[in-house]
Amino acid sequence: MSKLLPDHLLSGYRSFLETRLPGERELIRDLAERGQHPKTMVIACCDSRAAPEVLFNCSPGDIFVVRNVANLVPPYEPDGEYHSTSAALEFAVNSLAVEHIVILGHGSCGGIQAALSPAFQPLSAGDFIGKWMSLLEPAAKAMGSNNLMTGRERQSALERIAIRYSVANLRSFPFIAEREAENTITLHGAWIDISSGDLWAMDPETGDFRMTINE
Amino acid sequence: MSKLLPDHLLSGYRSFLETRLPGERELIRDLAERGQHPKTMVIACCDSRAAPEVLFNCSPGDIFVVRNVANLVPPYEPDGEYHSTSAALEFAVNSLAVEHIVILGHGSCGGIQAALSPAFQPLSAGDFIGKWMSLLEPAAKAMGSNNLMTGRERQSALERIAIRYSVANLRSFPFIAEREAENTITLHGAWIDISSGDLWAMDPETGDFRMTINE
Amino acid sequence: MSKLLPDHLLSGYRSFLETRLPGERELIRDLAERGQHPKTMVIACCDSRAAPEVLFNCSPGDIFVVRNVANLVPPYEPDGEYHSTSAALEFAVNSLAVEHIVILGHGSCGGIQAALSPAFQPLSAGDFIGKWMSLLEPAAKAMGSNNLMTGRERQSALERIAIRYSVANLRSFPFIAEREAENTITLHGAWIDISSGDLWAMDPETGDFRMTINE
Amino acid sequence: MSKLLPDHLLSGYRSFLETRLPGERELIRDLAERGQHPKTMVIACCDSRAAPEVLFNCSPGDIFVVRNVANLVPPYEPDGEYHSTSAALEFAVNSLAVEHIVILGHGSCGGIQAALSPAFQPLSAGDFIGKWMSLLEPAAKAMGSNNLMTGRERQSALERIAIRYSVANLRSFPFIAEREAENTITLHGAWIDISSGDLWAMDPETGDFRMTINE
Repeated sequence: MSKLLPDHLLSGYRSFLETRLPGERELIRDLAERGQHPKTMVIACCDSRAAPEVLFNCSPGDIFVVRNVANLVPPYEPDGEYHSTSAALEFAVNSLAVEHIVILGHGSCGGIQAALSPAFQPLSAGDFIGKWMSLLEPAAKAMGSNNLMTGRERQSALERIAIRYSVANLRSFPFIAEREAENTITLHGAWIDISSGDLWAMDPETGDFRMTINE
Repeated sequence: MSKLLPDHLLSGYRSFLETRLPGERELIRDLAERGQHPKTMVIACCDSRAAPEVLFNCSPGDIFVVRNVANLVPPYEPDGEYHSTSAALEFAVNSLAVEHIVILGHGSCGGIQAALSPAFQPLSAGDFIGKWMSLLEPAAKAMGSNNLMTGRERQSALERIAIRYSVANLRSFPFIAEREAENTITLHGAWIDISSGDLWAMDPETGDFRMTINE
Repeated sequence: MSKLLPDHLLSGYRSFLETRLPGERELIRDLAERGQHPKTMVIACCDSRAAPEVLFNCSPGDIFVVRNVANLVPPYEPDGEYHSTSAALEFAVNSLAVEHIVILGHGSCGGIQAALSPAFQPLSAGDFIGKWMSLLEPAAKAMGSNNLMTGRERQSALERIAIRYSVANLRSFPFIAEREAENTITLHGAWIDISSGDLWAMDPETGDFRMTINE
Repeated sequence: MSKLLPDHLLSGYRSFLETRLPGERELIRDLAERGQHPKTMVIACCDSRAAPEVLFNCSPGDIFVVRNVANLVPPYEPDGEYHSTSAALEFAVNSLAVEHIVILGHGSCGGIQAALSPAFQPLSAGDFIGKWMSLLEPAAKAMGSNNLMTGRERQSALERIAIRYSVANLRSFPFIAEREAENTITLHGAWIDISSGDLWAMDPETGDFRMTINE
């Protein structure tokens, strides 16, 4: 079997079978029969240290999850091209009728770091990651040239700016803006410090982030 | 605090703080300092019942994860547009040098179900999910019209076809094909039965799926 | 007596006499006889919410304390004028031979807020607070015009920039620079979140602030 | 963490977290939200044995505190230079509208001792502490040559003279004199015997100091 899947996944799967699955058999059968009805969609980063199911101790069926580099939501752009994140938004909101969308950022984000690096240049064709992070280019350039702040401060500032940017872009989708106006959906921002596990939540009025543990 | 994040996430986060974080403090500090070096990238579905960290019982740092609707990898298309999944692939392979990429599909996939539905039509502008699933259009049309198979059979057949299609598309990326030729990266397919927790792995020679528990 | 001192100070003094003084009689007599030999000088803000003796639970004799608006250290300027903070530095370092100097900033600092306000103008004579905060003018202007960050983020960023600025100014005093070169004095930065009591300490290598509770 | 802050401060901070913070959480959150509104400003000495928050058993938000060597208020001098103490006075009176200003002197003051020493000479450039204490030069010279009093008597006499001098200088600030005339601010002098904890308050009519415990 070692050829079919990486060993560490297989041994992890055996742990899942022994420790977690027995307690969830009924739940997953039920979810398979009746379909998923998650209340919340989370847009998180691909980073191996920022899994939302771990952070929020989720059970199967709890959250519908997009993960892309730097947890970005592009602006609404109905141009007939493939839009992975927009497609997931459409499915979560229009088909699953989620009640919450959470943009979950995190510290030490490699995509944000790349965007802030001095080599952030006009992008060549085929440079997927550069093009993707260019969604943040104006903010990244403004923050990247701020020499009063340390590298880490610029990074965590841009991580939060990016979360606010993605929340704003959520509102550019008509089907989200309508539901927000009707109070049937709520948009949230959050940021996890991956070195400590501290979770910060965005104040929707001011855009500030506050440690949830202190609330 | 209930205003800033959905209650079920906050109570889950408190469980995480109490039960899981204490045992992982050293690991996460170390990962934050030294950076992530995941060996494996997993491309999974957004579905709330198919979290790869749960299925593979992962620790922080183990897997780099993309999640999009129906765990699709589009073909290599360096056209200067935003490509979320391609950007993540580029980052995982070129920057993080992952050794494995796993396409993880699952049963009862809503995206696959939509692709198979009779209403699968030429796509209107703004129809993000339709456009996204149109990556599978030829296969979906062929399978959708196969009246010899039951609805469930068509669905799980297309789920597996889609995994093979995504593995093939991975090879269209030059930076992946090169590494596969050098034996520094291995491509995998897997499929999880969300009603039972059974994991099936794809045989790279034949494309067949086999239950891992039987290996 | 109510005429001689404000009532709240007199009642506080009676509490001190009853609850704290009895346990410290020997200590204070000893300190009065032998003189003070504090190991640490703290430069803190006048703010009523940021008393270093409270935060660090100090006993008499522990810390030598300057408090001025925004805990600023001006650059070394031996021009024969009155320099309150420089005088205290000279006394603490040359006479008391303190081993540590800590710049202690804090959140919601009114001085920093004033510096960031749009009305921060060329200063009129007699405008003591404006002139004092003009020590931070270049940084305040740069941060004040950063519209990507929220007001609170600009504020806490400038609070930290100001601490680094003051630490750098400490090194402009020859008697401090010499002792730092001899390793007989260490310079520190710290920042207290007055809404939560969380203490952040500055990394001397990078200038970053880290929560001490997580160390 | 021992590298980032002196050990004695960190262990004191831990005591603060365990013993004092729990009882003040609501108060500090409230103060952070609503801002500080201290009724009283205290101008005290840097001396490690004379912390006003300890002496007056203050809670967060109670007193706005300047600490400089020998708790001196220089005369009003609007010359466009940096004036740390004057800036704090301006902020406390004009922005915070404090109702009381207390000059708090203390026994065994090192600054006063230096001013009285025979070596009190015309000050060289760069001699910050000498220049600072020269605010008291005429009085210090007169008292220093008074051989009828003992050294200790000269010292505590000058400590009280200095308090009356600072109270008088407070009145040289137009914004203070105006408010005193309107009865919206009251000026006080006090002196603490650091060997016994006895607090003496100044009679505003006569300038005499009386033990508060006897009132």
